[in-house]
Amino acid sequence: MLRRNVESRDAQTRQMQDAVSNVEKHFGELCQVFAGYVRKKARLRDKADLLVNEINAYASTETPNLKHGLKNFAEEFAKLQDYRQAEVERLEAKVVEPLKTYGTIVKMKRAETELQRATMDATRTSRHLEETIDNFEKQKIKDIKNIFSEFITIEMLFHGKALEVYTAAYQNMQKIDEEEDLEIFRSSLYPPDYSTRLDIVRANSKSPLQRSLSAKCISGTAQIPTSRIRKDQQDDDEEDDDELEVTEEEN
Amino acid sequence: MLRRNVESRDAQTRQMQDAVSNVEKHFGELCQVFAGYVRKKARLRDKADLLVNEINAYASTETPNLKHGLKNFAEEFAKLQDYRQAEVERLEAKVVEPLKTYGTIVKMKRAETELQRATMDATRTSRHLEETIDNFEKQKIKDIKNIFSEFITIEMLFHGKALEVYTAAYQNMQKIDEEEDLEIFRSSLYPPDYSTRLDIVRANSKSPLQRSLSAKCISGTAQIPTSRIRKDQQDDDEEDDDELEVTEEEN
Repeated sequence: MLRRNVESRDAQTRQMQDAVSNVEKHFGELCQVFAGYVRKKARLRDKADLLVNEINAYASTETPNLKHGLKNFAEEFAKLQDYRQAEVERLEAKVVEPLKTYGTIVKMKRAETELQRATMDATRTSRHLEETIDNFEKQKIKDIKNIFSEFITIEMLFHGKALEVYTAAYQNMQKIDEEEDLEIFRSSLYPPDYSTRLDIVRANSKSPLQRSLSAKCISGTAQIPTSRIRKDQQDDDEEDDDELEVTEEEN
Repeated sequence: MLRRNVESRDAQTRQMQDAVSNVEKHFGELCQVFAGYVRKKARLRDKADLLVNEINAYASTETPNLKHGLKNFAEEFAKLQDYRQAEVERLEAKVVEPLKTYGTIVKMKRAETELQRATMDATRTSRHLEETIDNFEKQKIKDIKNIFSEFITIEMLFHGKALEVYTAAYQNMQKIDEEEDLEIFRSSLYPPDYSTRLDIVRANSKSPLQRSLSAKCISGTAQIPTSRIRKDQQDDDEEDDDELEVTEEEN
């Protein structure tokens, strides 16, 4: 009877250790990939911020209606980036952090089973171990459901806001009065004297954010390397990204 | 009268050149930033593809309901990445390419005005130049409205699909039967003999995609550098990204 209990205890300890190791491995990997996903979202937001600046810079050089329309779009698009920032922060707090926290929980559980095994009598340990395994499993299922539900909710909130913002932005873009702008532009061709006309033109062609960026896209050599990576490919797409940035700098 | 025409012609030529230079500069910069934005979207899609793999790998080690729920989510999430891929391709074709094409148009327009100026008589040139400027301006306003409208439409299409996919995914996630899984897990604690039980445990703890990834997130040292860049910062966020990847590799 004691021998059977000892065998049972050893088997349960191994089962607990296997379960704990599995969670440790997969939650760690999930945490890492989710963190990478959130990081890429943050990079996308950074690029969108640059786009806002660039649209504003261009808008400043344009005729009134187009200028107003573009500045309006830049403002809406900037608002969307604030929502994206909130999305990034929520994903960190509600998805990445809880997965990271599991590392600590797992370490504690492992110590707990080791301790139980070493210090308690066989019958009590066996019952206690079953309880520990049971609680661990229960909590894990609950947590994984919760983490994925949080992920989905946070993403939905952002996509919903995006639809809202873009709907308004589209209508504003359509409302830009091309004809009126063309009239304004035409009238600048026949001002009272040439110097006035040239002043208008010169004032319009100065952007408030004069930058050193050369117009690489116009040279026709800019690459947009967006081809899909193979499904089995690992994180070395980062390296790929670097190379491409270097290529662009050299163009 | 001829002198006035020559002056008028010169002023118009300069105005045309200023307008063309302004478009060349800003469309080039917009093209570049839009291309960067699309590239980051493609990187996000790559990370999401890795996430699909990782979720499937973890799901394979789990009890039936959780396994089914996670695999279902991975499938829906993969579908969303196909929409993201379509979004990336559309943005390239309808936003980045048209902006890039402007480089060629601008070069032709510049040659056109130079040629007109050099070869035609003053009166004809002046009228012709006005027409050229007018057409250029008209086309430009039309094109910029069109490019931005395309951008908004493509983005909306994706966000709409995302909402649709996540709505279904959320409902499926909520439907995962925790209690049944727990019962299945519990029954694996009392199989006819220990070897059977251990077989079940061992079979469950083997993932189909055994990887060499260490669980860095669990160590608590993983960094999620998502802090917003300064609005005036340029493209060197790429460098930042590389450094962080290196840091992670070293952890």
